[in-house]
Amino acid sequence: MFPRITDYAHQLLEQRIQPGAHVIDATMGNGHDTVFLAQQVGETGKVYSFDIQQQALDSTRQLLVKRHLEQRARLFLQSHAMMDFPAESIDAVVFNLGYLPRSDKTITTQAETTIESIKRALRFLKVGGLIVVVVYWGHEQGKIEKQAVEQFVEGLPFPEFMVLRYQYMNPLNQPPFVLAIERRRRPTVD
Amino acid sequence: MFPRITDYAHQLLEQRIQPGAHVIDATMGNGHDTVFLAQQVGETGKVYSFDIQQQALDSTRQLLVKRHLEQRARLFLQSHAMMDFPAESIDAVVFNLGYLPRSDKTITTQAETTIESIKRALRFLKVGGLIVVVVYWGHEQGKIEKQAVEQFVEGLPFPEFMVLRYQYMNPLNQPPFVLAIERRRRPTVD
Repeated sequence: MFPRITDYAHQLLEQRIQPGAHVIDATMGNGHDTVFLAQQVGETGKVYSFDIQQQALDSTRQLLVKRHLEQRARLFLQSHAMMDFPAESIDAVVFNLGYLPRSDKTITTQAETTIESIKRALRFLKVGGLIVVVVYWGHEQGKIEKQAVEQFVEGLPFPEFMVLRYQYMNPLNQPPFVLAIERRRRPTVD
Repeated sequence: MFPRITDYAHQLLEQRIQPGAHVIDATMGNGHDTVFLAQQVGETGKVYSFDIQQQALDSTRQLLVKRHLEQRARLFLQSHAMMDFPAESIDAVVFNLGYLPRSDKTITTQAETTIESIKRALRFLKVGGLIVVVVYWGHEQGKIEKQAVEQFVEGLPFPEFMVLRYQYMNPLNQPPFVLAIERRRRPTVD
């Protein structure tokens, strides 16, 4: 059977993240991806995780401590649109677009800040690195964000970047889907 | 790196096809998929391959003989829209939509016959079976066919069927993409 969409996102990340990797969870939420990433990067790697809600940091910290992984992650109470890292220093970035499950559904990611964040992530990304975006678009704001993000990634220059859409087409109710961007090479200078 | 689209199609098929499987190559073309499928089904399995051009059968026969796989395949000089097998007897079906490479480019698969063929394939398919459609749509007729096929597969009932789109979004010139349909269960009768 085809994997669940969140499992597919994890498969893509697993294939790319080696022990010692530096990775970003741009949308910490309840912390499940931060924990997953902390398992992948090993003792010598690091996860940098962002969220604008204190509740997200608290849940994530709790999960990490329970699994004895708290040394592998740094949590930032900050929008992913503000994240800043050196160029070509990051192996992978994950975004879960939408709202924090079981919390205030009026606080969602927004098209403009999401695209600013993806642009930043592209600059941080090593050649061979990967950005995985899981697009939840069942809510009103989500449809606008989906279109904006699709349009942005479709315009990324090939072959410097390769953009994958992995989507289940026939379930009703706008099921989430994956957009993944790999950085294949530096831009060619003529 | 993300796989080439034809390699991804083969990965999907490989995961599903066990030795002894009965599978269909609906669009034989130059025979590369028939050979690939013959390798997967083993000595006890069978590949049924269709094409309306004698040239396709000749090339395919030649390739099979070269690899000593001719016992594993039956080649039909017949449209895939005419293929007929018992219900739930087939493990996998592959379609390459478009024209036969290096041949008469006016002979292409057509929206109407393609959809008729996919409908047939859905009836032959075992529960747990898979249809893989590689959509080449760089030619004029291809754009019409692409839209018709997309619309058809989006309407397939979930959870009886699950339909996957796997597509690279940013290369120019309408690169081919994969639509894959798995049959998950029989229809529920209330």
